Amino acid sequence: MTYCVAMRLRAGLLFASDTRTNAGVDHIASFRKMYQFQIPHLREIVILAAGNLATTQSVISLLNQRLNGDGEHLLNVPSLYDAAVLLGRTLKEVVHRDGDDPHNHGVDFGANFLIGGQIKGEGPRLFHVYPQGNFIEATEDTPYFQIGESKYGKPIIDRVIRYETTALDEAAKCTLVSFDSTIQSNLSVGLPIDMLMLRANQFEQAMQPPHRIERDDPYFLSLRTGWSAGLRKVFDDLPNEPWFQT
Amino acid sequence: MTYCVAMRLRAGLLFASDTRTNAGVDHIASFRKMYQFQIPHLREIVILAAGNLATTQSVISLLNQRLNGDGEHLLNVPSLYDAAVLLGRTLKEVVHRDGDDPHNHGVDFGANFLIGGQIKGEGPRLFHVYPQGNFIEATEDTPYFQIGESKYGKPIIDRVIRYETTALDEAAKCTLVSFDSTIQSNLSVGLPIDMLMLRANQFEQAMQPPHRIERDDPYFLSLRTGWSAGLRKVFDDLPNEPWFQT
Repeated sequence: MTYCVAMRLRAGLLFASDTRTNAGVDHIASFRKMYQFQIPHLREIVILAAGNLATTQSVISLLNQRLNGDGEHLLNVPSLYDAAVLLGRTLKEVVHRDGDDPHNHGVDFGANFLIGGQIKGEGPRLFHVYPQGNFIEATEDTPYFQIGESKYGKPIIDRVIRYETTALDEAAKCTLVSFDSTIQSNLSVGLPIDMLMLRANQFEQAMQPPHRIERDDPYFLSLRTGWSAGLRKVFDDLPNEPWFQT
Repeated sequence: MTYCVAMRLRAGLLFASDTRTNAGVDHIASFRKMYQFQIPHLREIVILAAGNLATTQSVISLLNQRLNGDGEHLLNVPSLYDAAVLLGRTLKEVVHRDGDDPHNHGVDFGANFLIGGQIKGEGPRLFHVYPQGNFIEATEDTPYFQIGESKYGKPIIDRVIRYETTALDEAAKCTLVSFDSTIQSNLSVGLPIDMLMLRANQFEQAMQPPHRIERDDPYFLSLRTGWSAGLRKVFDDLPNEPWFQT
């Protein structure tokens, strides 16, 4: 399984993904799930992927391979909306190619993608592309999307993230707490974590690779320890159910 | 959907369930999901149910109806293990009766149950009965089970609950925090919450109905407020990701 989060806030965009891939519990490997497409100072696009690894890798390979062709590709589409359309179309192409064989009945070839970024001329945008190739866009009311093993880490995001007021560093902290809750409760999500932040209208950050948070990252370790101890203290300080004292 | 939790600790057993049933989002109703079977001073058995409401109600009706017959039933089985076998068999009976019609293809008739309690002569026990009718038993290493919408509320239970050391009132508090996280993130789980506690070797508590926590329950309200404010303070006090300050 996988856990990926992306947020579109007034301050900019934040992307994070784990790197664990598994088929069953004894075939575990580490794969990057974050992909960048960019033209310096003009466009930065980030894609996060969850689902069938053969499908997600094929989709990314085709998107990359076509960057040099004459047709529509991620570096020439006029808007991020068109980038989402292109991603959805490529996903359907791969799923039909690999999944239409009647012998493959019962195998899930599906995948979910988050695609976000900014193309000069429009503001930052973020989309969730479904396995069917259609997609939804993040709004001010719902400024974040999760794909993969999303439920364990959802409560803290719901409590903290607000489009207007959440700063990017606060969003990064919240995202790491959300990953911590997920990793604690689910074996199939694992470190390292890749993070990327795109400040609105800056067009500079995607020229670096994502920030990678390894198992021994001192900040993440201190965050995990502090969060765990803090939660425990809040919990212990809350009064017990009075019904139980009878 | 539904959210139910049961725990078997050294101190005793704790059961909790929400009361929301829905088919889609506009057919919402309130149904009890906790059922008690008891002989004063000799046995107390509690069942929690999640899944197809027609199936769970039929299973409980058959279990109740057969209490007056000559065959095996919940008030005469010699052990809680046998109670779990009986529950699993009754579940399969209902699923086959209602689900075998080929016109019903695609409808999920399945259900999950938690069954726990104590029968004089053995210690408290707790089982999770799967839709297939087989089951697993809680151990000291894994002292709790959840059924229904379980993921949102799992992290806090993983952090707090320990078989040897967790007291029942602490377990009740943890359970309500777990329900709070679930209710915040998932529309299909709703108040009121039913709770029941069975202290080990006491055989007295199940003679009362479950404790019902309504929307305006002052303890639950203060717990929600205190937990939310406390979490937020712990979160705010944690340092921000230093990478973001560059």
